[in-house]
Amino acid sequence: MPIIITAFERSPDGGKGLARDTRVRWALEEVGQPYEVRLVSFRAMKEPAHMGLHPFGQIPTYEEGDLALFETGGIVFHLAERYAGLLPADANARARAITWMFAAVNTVEPAILELVTVRFLEGDKPWSKERLPLVADRIRDRLGQLSARLGDADWLDGAFSAGDLMMASVILRLRASGILDEFPNLAAYIARSEARPAYKRAFAAQLAINAGNPPAG
Amino acid sequence: MPIIITAFERSPDGGKGLARDTRVRWALEEVGQPYEVRLVSFRAMKEPAHMGLHPFGQIPTYEEGDLALFETGGIVFHLAERYAGLLPADANARARAITWMFAAVNTVEPAILELVTVRFLEGDKPWSKERLPLVADRIRDRLGQLSARLGDADWLDGAFSAGDLMMASVILRLRASGILDEFPNLAAYIARSEARPAYKRAFAAQLAINAGNPPAG
Repeated sequence: MPIIITAFERSPDGGKGLARDTRVRWALEEVGQPYEVRLVSFRAMKEPAHMGLHPFGQIPTYEEGDLALFETGGIVFHLAERYAGLLPADANARARAITWMFAAVNTVEPAILELVTVRFLEGDKPWSKERLPLVADRIRDRLGQLSARLGDADWLDGAFSAGDLMMASVILRLRASGILDEFPNLAAYIARSEARPAYKRAFAAQLAINAGNPPAG
Repeated sequence: MPIIITAFERSPDGGKGLARDTRVRWALEEVGQPYEVRLVSFRAMKEPAHMGLHPFGQIPTYEEGDLALFETGGIVFHLAERYAGLLPADANARARAITWMFAAVNTVEPAILELVTVRFLEGDKPWSKERLPLVADRIRDRLGQLSARLGDADWLDGAFSAGDLMMASVILRLRASGILDEFPNLAAYIARSEARPAYKRAFAAQLAINAGNPPAG
């Protein structure tokens, strides 16, 4: 059964790798599974055919025979469980890696995505400028804790896992903000992640689509 | 090996069941596992002993022999994988239930927790009043999509699963806002969740701790 994922026809980031299909491409590359990509427009994402696959009208989705999944954490977990390479064999280490997946999307990412809210969704509001440092400080709180836990280790808990894949995907979007540079061990963690051949292939694949398509509106 | 979780010595909600130990208690009750609770103060949560268990200095944590976990999604998943009652046996249905767990914490909860930011963390800011309806509308967007997907079904995908446990835990905190009442099928979904004997036991257990302890200042 071919694996088919969806991605933006034109990514809002113009190919910087921040659209969430990159996480799924990365996981697919780590486990060595080929995949096909179906591109969807912003309009098509909200139409019934796509909403049937993704109840929140987003990308990516994942189809494989009669299985359809829609959330990056769920998709990456499915790949990690089904194929070797993203979860340790030891039961306790596996449970900890999965906990890091949830920590990435539930404890770290929401603080970071507030940057999108304050800069873009509410960028025209009178409070945007004054709110930005509050949002940035909440990100620093989380990153400081993460940095303390990581210490001088290469990865969050032993070997690279789906927990690192999700955590790195979440925090690499901070580079443009400069905040990441305040935490050298996290900046190095991101550099290590981006140096992985699987990440490079995933990044190149999404860039190939977006390089010819300037970002929408 | 006894299962030991941590909870607030005095919950900020005074026992309304919104502290995150309730989710873990609920999962433990669904799978029929006894557990012990260690209460931690706000100060102790940020001290090295607790930060060693929870890198972000929060509750709940989960200890079982030499396994230590710290994120509700990761803890609930661990219980769901290890004991019967929270994940379907069919592989595809199982993958979808896990996707709903991630959707709860990554796609639905962040929008809802912005209510805490706007009302409390930034409740004294001049923009708080004007920002509140923007935050509420973003919640309505998500709930409208979730409501459309749920339709007249009892649960998100067949039988009750860990996906429902996480989703219900995330949206039940909206009741006081009135927003939940705008979506009758979601309000009924929450009522069904709260009517489960396992939820009732979990709620009662956290209330028993907090009823005698007024919320901390």
